[in-house]
Amino acid sequence: MLDSGTALQGVDGSRVLSIDAMGGDNGPATVVAGLSLFLKKNPGTQVMLHGRAKELTPLLAKHGLTDIVILRDASDVVTMHDKPSHVVRHGKATSMWSAIEAVRTGEAGVVVSCGNTGGLMAMSMLRLRKIDGVNRPAIACLWPSRNKQGFNVMLDAGADIRADQDDLLIYALMGTSYARNAFDLKRPRVGLLNVGTEEHKGRAELKVAHELIGASATKGDFEYVGFVEGGDLPGDACDVIVTDGFTGNVALKTGEGIANLISDFMRESLKRTPLSMLGALLARGALRSLKKRIDPRRVNGGVFLGLTKTVIKSHGSADATGVAAAISLAHRLADQHFSDRLASRLAASLPHESDRAAPPTQEQP
Amino acid sequence: MLDSGTALQGVDGSRVLSIDAMGGDNGPATVVAGLSLFLKKNPGTQVMLHGRAKELTPLLAKHGLTDIVILRDASDVVTMHDKPSHVVRHGKATSMWSAIEAVRTGEAGVVVSCGNTGGLMAMSMLRLRKIDGVNRPAIACLWPSRNKQGFNVMLDAGADIRADQDDLLIYALMGTSYARNAFDLKRPRVGLLNVGTEEHKGRAELKVAHELIGASATKGDFEYVGFVEGGDLPGDACDVIVTDGFTGNVALKTGEGIANLISDFMRESLKRTPLSMLGALLARGALRSLKKRIDPRRVNGGVFLGLTKTVIKSHGSADATGVAAAISLAHRLADQHFSDRLASRLAASLPHESDRAAPPTQEQP
Repeated sequence: MLDSGTALQGVDGSRVLSIDAMGGDNGPATVVAGLSLFLKKNPGTQVMLHGRAKELTPLLAKHGLTDIVILRDASDVVTMHDKPSHVVRHGKATSMWSAIEAVRTGEAGVVVSCGNTGGLMAMSMLRLRKIDGVNRPAIACLWPSRNKQGFNVMLDAGADIRADQDDLLIYALMGTSYARNAFDLKRPRVGLLNVGTEEHKGRAELKVAHELIGASATKGDFEYVGFVEGGDLPGDACDVIVTDGFTGNVALKTGEGIANLISDFMRESLKRTPLSMLGALLARGALRSLKKRIDPRRVNGGVFLGLTKTVIKSHGSADATGVAAAISLAHRLADQHFSDRLASRLAASLPHESDRAAPPTQEQP
Repeated sequence: MLDSGTALQGVDGSRVLSIDAMGGDNGPATVVAGLSLFLKKNPGTQVMLHGRAKELTPLLAKHGLTDIVILRDASDVVTMHDKPSHVVRHGKATSMWSAIEAVRTGEAGVVVSCGNTGGLMAMSMLRLRKIDGVNRPAIACLWPSRNKQGFNVMLDAGADIRADQDDLLIYALMGTSYARNAFDLKRPRVGLLNVGTEEHKGRAELKVAHELIGASATKGDFEYVGFVEGGDLPGDACDVIVTDGFTGNVALKTGEGIANLISDFMRESLKRTPLSMLGALLARGALRSLKKRIDPRRVNGGVFLGLTKTVIKSHGSADATGVAAAISLAHRLADQHFSDRLASRLAASLPHESDRAAPPTQEQP
């Protein structure tokens, strides 16, 4: 086992990944298995793992990671049912706290956790703070789409159940920055989710946000395509889709549910007759590539945007493949120093305080 | 051609279908083709068709429907871009107005239109009036699901962008009545759409609606399963899912978009190699049955709930199969005298006025 006190000497902390091993639906064995998958493809990446040493030590040994991964013992675990308010008050001994703390102190650059989303967000906001100008941080997620890059960025996927016009503008700017870094897009196309593309449709705050985002396109170096609809989430109308966290969360879970339903129906259909089973056998390469193309595990990893450091929420029910995908995303964003880039982009793109009716830095009551 | 003045003598108007032939994306030819498909399966059904006689007469002749369908000439058409406020003020000469009027006067029982949703809802509210106790009517649609009956009812799919706690309670009662009639369910299971199933999650009005709906389950003769999530729309957690029209509309379009994406990706995958093409050929029966099972055209037809008469909105881009499905749904609901049943169910289930903080009959300001 590496000695946790000395292991990080001489290492660039911003490239170290800080992983919370506990709190996922499938337990730490799945997280360590996912980490092992990731490290096979990315040997040499520095990783800190946080959780109960008694449980993690044998798991690391099993995967031959004992001398590679830095273990940080944390006796407590945030469960899926803990309320965010409880977590921030009583969570100091948890693996989640420990994983965030490593990033706060600069020992590591990016956090990954499969734990309770609300708890992770609350703790991250408390310990890592929001970037100047951001009132509500957001979770950005990826949708398989008809885009050149194959994915749309959607935010907010559920960090907050509300978003006013100023929040939606900030989401547009943060989403642009994320799409630019994740997909090498020079000038991402941004759309605002609504129930129709006509200008008179939708809630009042959406009409104001429509104006605000349109007016920021030049300064923010993105193309604003206007209102988009649910069907555009997997479409090619834009690269970044902005919405409040309630709508975004429902859309995300709806999309996953429909994809799972179709995949189950397909399996049933293909098993019905010997002929269709033979057909499925012959087409299995094609069906496997289809499955891979729409596999939600490939795009596992919601990124918290708007904090001074990058935090990645892996799906609670992620398997090893899903965990590995979330860690890969963390690795890419750490390498790009994404959180610093996002903060400087925001600072450059935001309207001056004096131009704004409601300053976004204002704290919630 | 049937003489429109005398054709309806001796006919039970409540079973006559009133169809707006104009205003869909694919024009009246598609509506008449869909009507023809429907009438082949349901000969003897009385149908009134509204639109420009000059355009419709040759279409009816082409399908051999000249002596079967009653034509009502209407010179004007509601377009997809007309605002609802414009439609109600200047729409008296439109086919949509004419189709609604036939139901208002009792000549027909159910309206079907592929036209502009907002216009259809505004005109229907103005001419057909709301049922006592209903503030916001809703559009109910069907989701392919893992249910015994294969479908979930979701409402509101987009009649209004807002819904308060009282509206959500009414939606639960109306959705129950619809599910009972459409699927012969004795005691439908009702869920309230939220971003999590825990009681502390979601917007304030959802927490109040949660209490209200739970308290009405016995009187309304349904089972309340509590909060459900986007993934339950195609799931088996309940039979009726209640949400506001903004969220419902985004979810519906997202689900359609994902289903179309997967179906396109599948087609591409299966065409990639000779082996996969052979496989697809052998499995074509299975793939066809899969396609049918998830085909959104099969469940075409949003039902406006909360008006004194039943109005069905067919998808603007519906093809002949889709139009036929919407007309079939109209036929079934007309046969069941659904609008009368819904009104009496609502009257029996609603809490007494004196028990309510905000009476649902209150008009919007």
